[in-house]
Amino acid sequence: MTINNDPMRDAIVDTAVELAARTSWEAVRLYDIVAELAISLDEIRLYFREKDELIDAWFDRADSRMLKEAESAGFLDLAASERIHHLIMTWLDALAVQRKVTRQMIMSKLEFGHIHIQIPAVLRVSRTVQWVREAAQRDATFMRRALEESTLTTIYLMTFFFWMRDASENSRHTRQFLKSHLTMAAWLGQKIYGRDPEKGAVPHRRQIPLQFD
Amino acid sequence: MTINNDPMRDAIVDTAVELAARTSWEAVRLYDIVAELAISLDEIRLYFREKDELIDAWFDRADSRMLKEAESAGFLDLAASERIHHLIMTWLDALAVQRKVTRQMIMSKLEFGHIHIQIPAVLRVSRTVQWVREAAQRDATFMRRALEESTLTTIYLMTFFFWMRDASENSRHTRQFLKSHLTMAAWLGQKIYGRDPEKGAVPHRRQIPLQFD
Repeated sequence: MTINNDPMRDAIVDTAVELAARTSWEAVRLYDIVAELAISLDEIRLYFREKDELIDAWFDRADSRMLKEAESAGFLDLAASERIHHLIMTWLDALAVQRKVTRQMIMSKLEFGHIHIQIPAVLRVSRTVQWVREAAQRDATFMRRALEESTLTTIYLMTFFFWMRDASENSRHTRQFLKSHLTMAAWLGQKIYGRDPEKGAVPHRRQIPLQFD
Repeated sequence: MTINNDPMRDAIVDTAVELAARTSWEAVRLYDIVAELAISLDEIRLYFREKDELIDAWFDRADSRMLKEAESAGFLDLAASERIHHLIMTWLDALAVQRKVTRQMIMSKLEFGHIHIQIPAVLRVSRTVQWVREAAQRDATFMRRALEESTLTTIYLMTFFFWMRDASENSRHTRQFLKSHLTMAAWLGQKIYGRDPEKGAVPHRRQIPLQFD
């Protein structure tokens, strides 16, 4: 329906987000983007049928960045919980260049009167969580059981809400927040399912179990 | 470990929440409760080992109210999605008498530096979602499949975040928000799993499918 990896598509998204950073997401109108890029409204319409699709494109970019990361060298050498940590942080880092605008986008989705927008938002959350699982869980059966889908969804959403208000450098606090939650989930998984048959996939309790960039 | 259904336990929770309503959750100290109830700190310690356990007690009350509602006459006559709607709204209504304080409690849990508090918060979310499923899903196999756990977790958390900022009378907007999401989930379930064998458990697309108080 829409063309991905198209420089114009990327330029429209970038311009919309930059305009929002100067004013607010609410204030951005499609014709502001038109004026900025010296294109026509009809050209924008080839890519985006309404302003809200720009939000989807912004989050698609984070999904894509995350999945590319899962293909990168060394990723499969990480323990399962480290992979999940790395994936979710990559996803957040893609959005972090415009954290304020991202927050405004989310808040606009949580306004009453925009319910038709919010419903796809729920589906989108589920989809991103599925992508995290798909990308992380090769050879990670143990972690998949320990970190069942609803727990991962909860951790992902709470981390996202935490991150939206995190002003620490390089989202340091969010990294720690996510790490603690994954460690606890892994530890609980160990209690429930017994020790991990895969070496290194679940940390010992007293070790600092996750290392990351 | 703690005694439930004890009038003193309830009085401590009530007092803490009332004091918070006058100032803020952050400002409440255990000795303020002691002064208000004319008891000793040692008496409080029989019930609560730290202030944060008061938050647990406040949410336990909502869980309990919700589960009692599942035992009430007529509950099992509701369609599956109506049951879930009714349960989640009963849970929120129990907190709604002190919505501002509830919001402050949640925000205190999302502060960095309180991570040891947040981890049980994640477990608690999972547990409440499990209770909703347990209470709702008798004879509701279809809805259970349609509304898989991660979707319900997402809907529950997003409804909760929406509710925290909802100033409409009797949380009218939240009711509508939740209804729309459950309807969409049921409709999607129907698309994925085919028609419901249980009459009435999944709404027809064009009908207004949920009725509630």
